[in-house]
Amino acid sequence: MDDILIKNVLLFGKKSNVLIRGKRFGNIDAPSDAQARQVIDGEGMAMLPPFYNTHTHAAMTLLRGYADDMPLHQWLTEYVWPFEQKMTAADIREGSRLAVREMIKMGTVFFSDMYFDVEETIDIVQEFGMRAAIGMTFMETHSKAQQAGKIDFLKHWVDPTGGRITLTVAPHAIYTVGPDMLQFCSRTARELGLKLHIHVSETLKEVEDCQREHGTTPVRYLDKLGVLGPEVVAAHCVHIDAEETDILAARGVTLSHCPCSNQKLASGIFPYKMAREAGCRITLGTDGVSSNNNLDMREEMKFAALIAKGASRDPLTLPAHEALEMATRNGAEAFGIDAGVIAEGKLADAILVRLDDECMQPLHHLVSNWVYAANSSIVDTVICDGRILMQNRQFPHS
Amino acid sequence: MDDILIKNVLLFGKKSNVLIRGKRFGNIDAPSDAQARQVIDGEGMAMLPPFYNTHTHAAMTLLRGYADDMPLHQWLTEYVWPFEQKMTAADIREGSRLAVREMIKMGTVFFSDMYFDVEETIDIVQEFGMRAAIGMTFMETHSKAQQAGKIDFLKHWVDPTGGRITLTVAPHAIYTVGPDMLQFCSRTARELGLKLHIHVSETLKEVEDCQREHGTTPVRYLDKLGVLGPEVVAAHCVHIDAEETDILAARGVTLSHCPCSNQKLASGIFPYKMAREAGCRITLGTDGVSSNNNLDMREEMKFAALIAKGASRDPLTLPAHEALEMATRNGAEAFGIDAGVIAEGKLADAILVRLDDECMQPLHHLVSNWVYAANSSIVDTVICDGRILMQNRQFPHS
Repeated sequence: MDDILIKNVLLFGKKSNVLIRGKRFGNIDAPSDAQARQVIDGEGMAMLPPFYNTHTHAAMTLLRGYADDMPLHQWLTEYVWPFEQKMTAADIREGSRLAVREMIKMGTVFFSDMYFDVEETIDIVQEFGMRAAIGMTFMETHSKAQQAGKIDFLKHWVDPTGGRITLTVAPHAIYTVGPDMLQFCSRTARELGLKLHIHVSETLKEVEDCQREHGTTPVRYLDKLGVLGPEVVAAHCVHIDAEETDILAARGVTLSHCPCSNQKLASGIFPYKMAREAGCRITLGTDGVSSNNNLDMREEMKFAALIAKGASRDPLTLPAHEALEMATRNGAEAFGIDAGVIAEGKLADAILVRLDDECMQPLHHLVSNWVYAANSSIVDTVICDGRILMQNRQFPHS
Repeated sequence: MDDILIKNVLLFGKKSNVLIRGKRFGNIDAPSDAQARQVIDGEGMAMLPPFYNTHTHAAMTLLRGYADDMPLHQWLTEYVWPFEQKMTAADIREGSRLAVREMIKMGTVFFSDMYFDVEETIDIVQEFGMRAAIGMTFMETHSKAQQAGKIDFLKHWVDPTGGRITLTVAPHAIYTVGPDMLQFCSRTARELGLKLHIHVSETLKEVEDCQREHGTTPVRYLDKLGVLGPEVVAAHCVHIDAEETDILAARGVTLSHCPCSNQKLASGIFPYKMAREAGCRITLGTDGVSSNNNLDMREEMKFAALIAKGASRDPLTLPAHEALEMATRNGAEAFGIDAGVIAEGKLADAILVRLDDECMQPLHHLVSNWVYAANSSIVDTVICDGRILMQNRQFPHS
């Protein structure tokens, strides 16, 4: 017998009965007399793939609204870093809990994180049933003992969830990690079969400093070091030229586009159209809450689409279905998660959204309404790995 | 005895008891034993000014998601215009009803509209208790009889709500209305003491066509015709230069900035920083749903702030409090509504937002959370002109 049956839910333009067995979708167009251990009434709702957020600093929810509308340097040195120095493991736990609750409520089932005290975040992810790729952050300022501890953790950690959580090797950026450590991180990621998560070309200053120190741009520098490969997830990539875009595409690098953060910090506009046409794999990230200030991937999709249209002076750039793919399938694929689309045999990750909200009416085009018109409060139910993480906007397991 | 008492609501950083008598705020820091006919428990909520949306085409909610991600000309000629030609007065009524419900749910109490069959929209505004400035649209393609009917309506219409609804004279744009009709509209607005609502410099094509036909740019052209004055509400103003910005400021014109629409149609980026520094009165509008695709002023505030920071390469541009003022006080002031701030003696327009939502936590900075982090689903209660339009997200009067 199947485990979950979602009845009469709108899927691919028609009312369907969707079956889930264990972790995976079964028949997604089951007959009306189908049975399962647990039945969800999908009447008045549509099923969509959930979000895969490829660049976050989850525990920074604690800094939401703490310091906005100020120059980057002042923001970091006078507010963010002093705040972070006072953060305890218990704070990281509470920040992660708030982030995970917010993400699930907004329809997100996966995030790729980069922060500290990762055991706390891992615990919360496990408790709430999400997926995550948790970065072990490397910076030159860390002590040798800290670094050795991280390497040890990377080598010996065992996922307690049986497949929902992975670690990543996360050298912070080229301006905080030297060439030797970058190459060490790259070797480690490849040896352990892990992703490598790094900030790349976020600001013009980063590019100018790189030019001065290394005589070339960040993407070319990383490529010369041999760091770029299909395991790399490069956050931001705002300041990249056409040749760098081709290098990123050729190496199979995943780009994590964070439009809200880039605009809020006035970093610049990611050249979406160029990167798309070069064949880059582009995913979507919210970045940390202190520069966004939420983890709302629905809002991020709209923002990404609108800013790409505006920047390219072309309303055909980044249409709604592409924004949804970027935020769902592309992110799942980048992290090797066999999900992100609703199909028989795929891992059962899905959201149910309410269609009775004014912003979803009329329903000429479901995806267009979801990307451009909705807000994330219409997410009623979140399913991840065949388990219900939220139903009727309530957390059943917590 | 006062009419409404909102108890224990967060206002200006502390828990307050707020009294409303008739249409206006009374004591906004009343003692704990204050009494009123109707008591609202404001515990766990904050009081904020509601939104004044200065550029809409309300009934176009019917076109939500109908035609996205396509070139402007194809969008208009193959989709929007044929759709609109089939719209009946009953359709306008239903579209207006959907718009008004959506706006109230998102915390908006006023909109400045430009569309057709205005009696239908007026009826719905009256039914739901909102404020509105309803534009009588003028275009050269209308028949003489239609125009005469509109002029007659402008001259003889009496507001059935005793002050919540006004009409505006709305020549559509310089490319649909010739110079004689523009000047006629201007005279009519001034004679009747009404606002003049017009699209200005929305696209580069409009500017280029104006240069070719009239030998100058749209703002200069309108100024030469004598049309610009403090009664003018100019929507978009995307393509304006420094001198035009000074002209708009000198004439006291109200600008209605519509960032989502401008980006979705790839029209260009409104030069916010320049217009602000020139002293222009800048308000916020969503434009019609077909180019947005919602009426969500909270989202519009965030989008406006982020795109202004990005475009000016300065994270200090358009801080949160300025975004809130633009969306609230500036819009009210532009239309002569004695509201938009919470203060004794002001018209009692307000919203209560729930603070228990994850996106409002922690509460380092209420306005920052509201502008950057929230979504409009946290609006619990909407008060307009001393009446409750929505409470606990329900409409009491409909």
